[in-house]
Amino acid sequence: MKKILITAGGTSEKIDQVRSITNHSTGKLGCVIANQALSQGIHVDYISTANAIKPEKHFGLVTYLIEDTLDLKNQLTDLLNTNTYDAVIHSMAVSDFTPANSYSIEAFTEQLNQLITQSDAPLTIEQVSQLAEKAQQNTESKISSKTDYLFLTLKKNPKVIQLIKQIQPDTLLVSFKLLVDVSKEELFKVATESMMKNHGDFVLANDLMSIKGDQHLGHLLDKDGQLIGKASTKPAIASLILANLTKEGVH
Amino acid sequence: MKKILITAGGTSEKIDQVRSITNHSTGKLGCVIANQALSQGIHVDYISTANAIKPEKHFGLVTYLIEDTLDLKNQLTDLLNTNTYDAVIHSMAVSDFTPANSYSIEAFTEQLNQLITQSDAPLTIEQVSQLAEKAQQNTESKISSKTDYLFLTLKKNPKVIQLIKQIQPDTLLVSFKLLVDVSKEELFKVATESMMKNHGDFVLANDLMSIKGDQHLGHLLDKDGQLIGKASTKPAIASLILANLTKEGVH
Repeated sequence: MKKILITAGGTSEKIDQVRSITNHSTGKLGCVIANQALSQGIHVDYISTANAIKPEKHFGLVTYLIEDTLDLKNQLTDLLNTNTYDAVIHSMAVSDFTPANSYSIEAFTEQLNQLITQSDAPLTIEQVSQLAEKAQQNTESKISSKTDYLFLTLKKNPKVIQLIKQIQPDTLLVSFKLLVDVSKEELFKVATESMMKNHGDFVLANDLMSIKGDQHLGHLLDKDGQLIGKASTKPAIASLILANLTKEGVH
Repeated sequence: MKKILITAGGTSEKIDQVRSITNHSTGKLGCVIANQALSQGIHVDYISTANAIKPEKHFGLVTYLIEDTLDLKNQLTDLLNTNTYDAVIHSMAVSDFTPANSYSIEAFTEQLNQLITQSDAPLTIEQVSQLAEKAQQNTESKISSKTDYLFLTLKKNPKVIQLIKQIQPDTLLVSFKLLVDVSKEELFKVATESMMKNHGDFVLANDLMSIKGDQHLGHLLDKDGQLIGKASTKPAIASLILANLTKEGVH
């Protein structure tokens, strides 16, 4: 392998000018993978976020900082259109949703009552989604704190990972699936489904419950969902991924 | 002044085990105030958050890290009960709301229709607040992404700042008010009201639009809401606050 693209860290989606919804990810695993790849003479393009841990400075490393899912989409599109990567290792924790609208409970109750008056019971999902989509008349730059409850609606983000094989069908794609406290069977099933949907070649399946300090249990599955390796630290996971990419690249 | 307490940074409130709502604050202003106070021989207890900038290491500095508003409440209560502070400089950006409940649009529509069936039109704020408060039957450790919209409800946090004078009525309290793109009259009015409600002695009023790089426009108002000083950089704001606290402490 000569050149790879790594994404790491977690995106943040703005609620207003002072608050956002953040996906927690230290970016440590992506960083360890980058350092190992660089030490093997591989050039690394690295997309990360402000608060994530970054790889050590290296002449083979170029870092791009992004904040939200839209930034990531633009940055990925640009890089994939102007470079050829042997592999893309997409470890960034990307927000599935982005804030669409916010209401005080007073405003939300008013909107609901308007909707009820205009519609026959029961309300349909399409009708309720108008509340989720609807832009407020006065978009507030900072949400007021003078209400007991806020209703925040969030809209699904496009799946940025799907861009990767659309733009570069020949690159090897490693995706990641993090679940919380599920059985190994469930984890492998969900990870495999998500990899197949995104035309990934490998998926690293892990469970937040098995990540503590230096210990990080990871299972690498191939494109058929078969377990091809297991590792219990971040450096071991990084080696496992890079070794399998190199092997695959040779064929 | 011999000993002060400074809070700085921004709290994060967990939505689930991998996402949270974060109040952005670099913590830079609190950090500059701490460094100046330490250089004047003042002991500083410093409450901050993981991602905030921290003061330089100093023998007169003790740092306490917190994550959410509840942590802050506990840490403040503990410190205020076991120390006597000449002043408390509360610059931390504290979340006004904490996530209470989350629904897919499908689940939310179902809950809404149940509420409509059970209630007479129009719905009252009290009725709608049941949706905001109601605990889900299956609390998810990670919210599923298989829905087009999420409805997230947030509940108001207790005003932690009010603890300060409740526990130590004799300390001097400096509060902060950050608004976004308002007139100076509006900013001073809101800042004064908020200071008075919390029994503050000073309030530093600032507008996000006047904070850029090294430039940071701040207005210091006294307990009657009178403007007693203005500064346009973080070090100048820090000097202004410390000078006024020292002057006040002498009387």
